[in-house]
Amino acid sequence: MDPPVGTPADLVAEAAALDAADGLAAKRGEFAVDDGTVYLDGNSLGALPRAVAARLADVVTREWGELRIRSWSESDWWTAPERVGDRIAPLVGAAPGQLVVGDSTSVNVFKAVVAAVRMAREDAPGRHEVLVDEATFPTDGYLAASAARLTGATLRPLPAAELAEAFGPYTAVALVNHVDYRTGQLGDLSGITASAHRAGARVVWDLCHSAGALPVELDAERVDFAVGCTYKYLNGGPGSPAYLHVRRDLQDRFDSPLPGWNSHAEPFAMSPGYVPADGAARGRVGTPEILSLLALEEALTVWDGVDLADVRAKSLALTDFFLRCVGAYVRGGRVHSLTPALRRRRGSQVSLRCADAEGVMAALAERGVVGDFRPPDVLRFGFTPLYTSFADAERAARALGEVVG
Amino acid sequence: MDPPVGTPADLVAEAAALDAADGLAAKRGEFAVDDGTVYLDGNSLGALPRAVAARLADVVTREWGELRIRSWSESDWWTAPERVGDRIAPLVGAAPGQLVVGDSTSVNVFKAVVAAVRMAREDAPGRHEVLVDEATFPTDGYLAASAARLTGATLRPLPAAELAEAFGPYTAVALVNHVDYRTGQLGDLSGITASAHRAGARVVWDLCHSAGALPVELDAERVDFAVGCTYKYLNGGPGSPAYLHVRRDLQDRFDSPLPGWNSHAEPFAMSPGYVPADGAARGRVGTPEILSLLALEEALTVWDGVDLADVRAKSLALTDFFLRCVGAYVRGGRVHSLTPALRRRRGSQVSLRCADAEGVMAALAERGVVGDFRPPDVLRFGFTPLYTSFADAERAARALGEVVG
Repeated sequence: MDPPVGTPADLVAEAAALDAADGLAAKRGEFAVDDGTVYLDGNSLGALPRAVAARLADVVTREWGELRIRSWSESDWWTAPERVGDRIAPLVGAAPGQLVVGDSTSVNVFKAVVAAVRMAREDAPGRHEVLVDEATFPTDGYLAASAARLTGATLRPLPAAELAEAFGPYTAVALVNHVDYRTGQLGDLSGITASAHRAGARVVWDLCHSAGALPVELDAERVDFAVGCTYKYLNGGPGSPAYLHVRRDLQDRFDSPLPGWNSHAEPFAMSPGYVPADGAARGRVGTPEILSLLALEEALTVWDGVDLADVRAKSLALTDFFLRCVGAYVRGGRVHSLTPALRRRRGSQVSLRCADAEGVMAALAERGVVGDFRPPDVLRFGFTPLYTSFADAERAARALGEVVG
Repeated sequence: MDPPVGTPADLVAEAAALDAADGLAAKRGEFAVDDGTVYLDGNSLGALPRAVAARLADVVTREWGELRIRSWSESDWWTAPERVGDRIAPLVGAAPGQLVVGDSTSVNVFKAVVAAVRMAREDAPGRHEVLVDEATFPTDGYLAASAARLTGATLRPLPAAELAEAFGPYTAVALVNHVDYRTGQLGDLSGITASAHRAGARVVWDLCHSAGALPVELDAERVDFAVGCTYKYLNGGPGSPAYLHVRRDLQDRFDSPLPGWNSHAEPFAMSPGYVPADGAARGRVGTPEILSLLALEEALTVWDGVDLADVRAKSLALTDFFLRCVGAYVRGGRVHSLTPALRRRRGSQVSLRCADAEGVMAALAERGVVGDFRPPDVLRFGFTPLYTSFADAERAARALGEVVG
């Protein structure tokens, strides 16, 4: 770690000054976070946006309870998957009409990888290889393996750093995590996507740990497919539905392995033959879980008026400051940062390797500091720019110093 | 239709007497249905069980808002898919430990059909045929076609009445609807399942239109796989998650096409290799949509103390009485019942073919009677024994008579 740079009094004062100057500070009031704890686990489950409770109560008692079946049209339930997708679109740099919300990230990984393999083979029948970051969040690897097995493709896991050089005439698609969930390393979306395209292959980006924490440029980088969850930095609630992005000019070629009736061109015609809908709706499957979906919709209103450049600047300032505080409070050698020092390779979390990490995280929780533990020895602290304060960062580092000595 | 059997006054009085003698009448008070309308669309979206609002408010404000990430363990979110499955199990005649709740019916059809084809081929490599009821709810057919395409199997749609005779040495699996969503005809679960097993094939039953409306005997009939939604007769809320049943002795052989991290034997070990969990949890995929799932859990409490034999008896009494009222109020020839007269072949809905069915259903809605219209010419009325009264049935038939003359 860096050597100590300040006394506790200096750092407390500095945190207060940083918070006072923070243009996003007012956003914190829109979340239920003022309970005296320091919540640094928003990269697992985002805190509750206060507006959600009232909206969900209305959805239950009036939309479901009173209007009942009429709400599919009168309360616009039917169009919610694309409408909520369009709410997320600006957060990932996508024009409207390319995202659909529904199902879990895992299910969307499956849709995207199978569809990408089919598309790549249509372009060139010999493409049989699915590349996957070997340190991927496990579910991506499991689903990519299943997609490969069912399409007769071959899975090749390899280090993320080697991906950009690995594309060749046999590559169908690469499935890549934008931010590594363990280390917080930000992947090279631009470089890997460009490499894929030069080789005539496709990419599927998993944005679970980046969307909402930093700007993502799906349109500018011409990303083919993307998926992501909405319960981390998008604060949609426990298990809130994931999204699937299919680039507009590829939508007509999107051949889903899960062609449920909600993705039919005329779903209420109830016809025996499947005819896929145009546009983002082609990524739908069955009936969406409306209560979770509309809670997410309300949660996304906290983004109104937020500039992602400000979010990114604050995120980096928070992780910088936290690392400085750790350097000041934690005895040298007790923790080792896995988080890239290089800002352009850093997501919005800090991961520290630490002996007895599980016990340390439990002791932090007793002091009101909530992060999480990733086996075997990683302490993970997520910084959510909309509600994490610099005072939170300082207090968490100080508690860590108390715990590890 | 049957000839008229009573004057309006007689039928109103008879309805009142039937309601007064109804052992399930008190259950109606547990639902939000006393708004002056007659709601006969519970086979599309069940009415709101009153207890849901308070439970969901607590889940949002306390479990998510205050406990946040801790709720995965402290509020037992993690175990909810199997716990809620065990709540449904007795309603479908299954011992605990065989159902898991999550994803849509469509996604579960896909899991079940792919797994069934794999299992059948393991038993006998030549099994390549997937049979499907040609009048199936469309999404089942679409997903079965996708499952067949991805596993190299062949789809063969045929009339439900021919299914029992269609199994042969090449059959892998049949996907069958327990109740036909258009006609309300109850399929021969016992006969078709036994035929499948005699031929060494597997069956997947879709219980969407039967579970909660009549007794289903999954264990007694040794059904291999079953799926169903929870937002019709189980009143779980709009798009509430579906369930997957895998017979206990087949669970170890269940080879899921969607092996998400939630179905891993050690999900938090985050290991790169997939090792499936034992038991019902093997049917999980990604993180479940907790708000929708826990609303469903609360909705299922209305079944406490309910005997499905009473539900079935009331269901048949309601549809019998409604058909009699229709006979009395509707001029001969204006409507034609598609619903089986034979009680043992009847689900819990009445479908009437009628000229200008769409306009008739709209006119009924203006009179406060809510059913639904299925193209091209079907009026569909669902009877939910827990909250539909005989007075509802009489009033709906009377309004129909007024509308169609």
